[in-house]
Amino acid sequence: MKIGVLGNGQLARMLALAGKPLGLDFAFCSADADGCANTLGDTVHCKPGDSGCIRAFADGVDVVTFENENVSPDVLKAIPADRTLPPARSILTAQDRLTEKRYLEKLGIAVPGYFVIDSEQDLLHALHESQTPLIVKTRRQGYDGRGQARIHTKQEAHTVWQESDGNDLIAEVMVAFEREVSMIAVRGHDDEMRFYPVTENHHEHGILMTATVRPNDPVQNMAEDYTRRLMQALDYVGVLGFEFFDCHGELLANEFAPRVHNTGHWSLDGAVCSQFENHLRAVCGLPLGDTSMLTPSTMFNIIGDYPDLTAVLKLPGVHYHHYQKQPRPNRKTGHITVCGHDDEAMRDTITRVIEVLGWR
Amino acid sequence: MKIGVLGNGQLARMLALAGKPLGLDFAFCSADADGCANTLGDTVHCKPGDSGCIRAFADGVDVVTFENENVSPDVLKAIPADRTLPPARSILTAQDRLTEKRYLEKLGIAVPGYFVIDSEQDLLHALHESQTPLIVKTRRQGYDGRGQARIHTKQEAHTVWQESDGNDLIAEVMVAFEREVSMIAVRGHDDEMRFYPVTENHHEHGILMTATVRPNDPVQNMAEDYTRRLMQALDYVGVLGFEFFDCHGELLANEFAPRVHNTGHWSLDGAVCSQFENHLRAVCGLPLGDTSMLTPSTMFNIIGDYPDLTAVLKLPGVHYHHYQKQPRPNRKTGHITVCGHDDEAMRDTITRVIEVLGWR
Repeated sequence: MKIGVLGNGQLARMLALAGKPLGLDFAFCSADADGCANTLGDTVHCKPGDSGCIRAFADGVDVVTFENENVSPDVLKAIPADRTLPPARSILTAQDRLTEKRYLEKLGIAVPGYFVIDSEQDLLHALHESQTPLIVKTRRQGYDGRGQARIHTKQEAHTVWQESDGNDLIAEVMVAFEREVSMIAVRGHDDEMRFYPVTENHHEHGILMTATVRPNDPVQNMAEDYTRRLMQALDYVGVLGFEFFDCHGELLANEFAPRVHNTGHWSLDGAVCSQFENHLRAVCGLPLGDTSMLTPSTMFNIIGDYPDLTAVLKLPGVHYHHYQKQPRPNRKTGHITVCGHDDEAMRDTITRVIEVLGWR
Repeated sequence: MKIGVLGNGQLARMLALAGKPLGLDFAFCSADADGCANTLGDTVHCKPGDSGCIRAFADGVDVVTFENENVSPDVLKAIPADRTLPPARSILTAQDRLTEKRYLEKLGIAVPGYFVIDSEQDLLHALHESQTPLIVKTRRQGYDGRGQARIHTKQEAHTVWQESDGNDLIAEVMVAFEREVSMIAVRGHDDEMRFYPVTENHHEHGILMTATVRPNDPVQNMAEDYTRRLMQALDYVGVLGFEFFDCHGELLANEFAPRVHNTGHWSLDGAVCSQFENHLRAVCGLPLGDTSMLTPSTMFNIIGDYPDLTAVLKLPGVHYHHYQKQPRPNRKTGHITVCGHDDEAMRDTITRVIEVLGWR
């Protein structure tokens, strides 16, 4: 069976590494000639929006899946619906923050207050109405904190609007949350669903830095309930990542990603069956794998330059994942997972990983 | 760093899958155009004995390692010694059963009684002397039970000699052992050594069928002691597999393999750091990984045709490894590992794996 992935970055790479032992073959479709997945399958270079090229790619594989939700509707139309997993509606819903929020609200999933912004007047009105600072985001194409700005004053509102460049915007009320958490879940063809334990996430400047998984998180059930509703409504197939704000035990939905998710990378080392294998099992119509945690785990993203490999590997219970990408500032180039049952040893190793990564 | 592997079969494949997350690149050298590792690196096709081709291959990589000990001395000579890991003497010692036994004896490691066979007369003499049935083996090139015959009578001795085709032979006394066990160990550049828990192995017709690892095997210490002696004497670097007969708690050495070993495949799913990653860490001069068992595990070889994937994956705690090889009778085409802490659930799953594999 041949899996076609739109994209050839690290998510495509880790899908392929997880899929080879299942006997799967891979093809990647991307405009990027240097994607780090390229060595693990055939790569087809399509220019953005070249529907004929995408269609030919789709015809050469058994199923098309995604490492990124920023896929144009035209590209989605070029892929036969019965070969598109997760289904196109998941991608279209996730790629527009307004569509996404309205969809979640309809399902009874709480979201932070927000305002649709079509003019500077809308933005000033929102600032006045909310009586709190706002986070202004582009409705589409944002990731890793790009396309986001915080505004506290009318002057900031003016500046942000001037710089918005005609993009559709949305302004979200800043939520006084205690934690950012996420749920990674998988749904099969037959409505079978499995849920990984919730992770607690830390971002800096909009970029995920760490994701930690521990047993018995108090919001596990609520996160499962919301994710179940979403996956069933979308008739979803595959792995889905769903980010929430935890406000005193109540969850507000931030956003979901219709794909394997950075906060699920710990599962490669800390779960019985990884999110990557489970995504492939789901889109291939195979039985789903066990999402249980083997050990508590903390994942660290490597941002930009690679750390000294010897310094990393000499730490106990550490797993290293190099993406073989050229380092660039703010680029995710790998990740490290620390696994272990001993809390104290884990804390010690985590401190040393932070040192090796140069974070302090 | 680029790792050159002599061979492009499943061991090379699993090395490459384990090495990509360390940021390693791979090249394979083989006469086989269809090796199942080929898609994971560059493949150089050298004819057997083409030393110039091997030399050019070695010059294009940082280190040359092996998936098979049946490498001719001429080929070994073509690779610069400082790039050959494990060192050539390990390969030369392991590839000749007589050299191997004498080497082990010198280290004080017990081996079953044996006779050097250079004539039919030698064979008849050995049969008379030993007063037990004998296993006659070619000194070189045997694997998976090939090149082996059991003899009980003078007539059988005659037939075996007639069919020996001029090969150097050795006759081993049949040992009344209780179990076949093996030790997988790894040694780094700096004499650091790590030992996996001992596995209990079951063969049929000379082919490994299962390898099982459980906590606290009573022969663990003795197996570690013997393996430590061997690795230090060879100034070994990399993973080594060492098979023993367990005779009432005393170990007799059967043979060692200077490479990752079939009885260590469980470590991909059941150990903190797999034998494949540890071999790469060792030959790259990196710190060694944790050889601890995560869960008790039983590995099943898939021999010939592949089982139904859905039937396999619906079993709990099962990990599947498809080698993407064309099925042929008696060919190892994949393996399945069953992992778990619950003895009863494990037994149930093992029974079901055996059914799925059609073994009963």
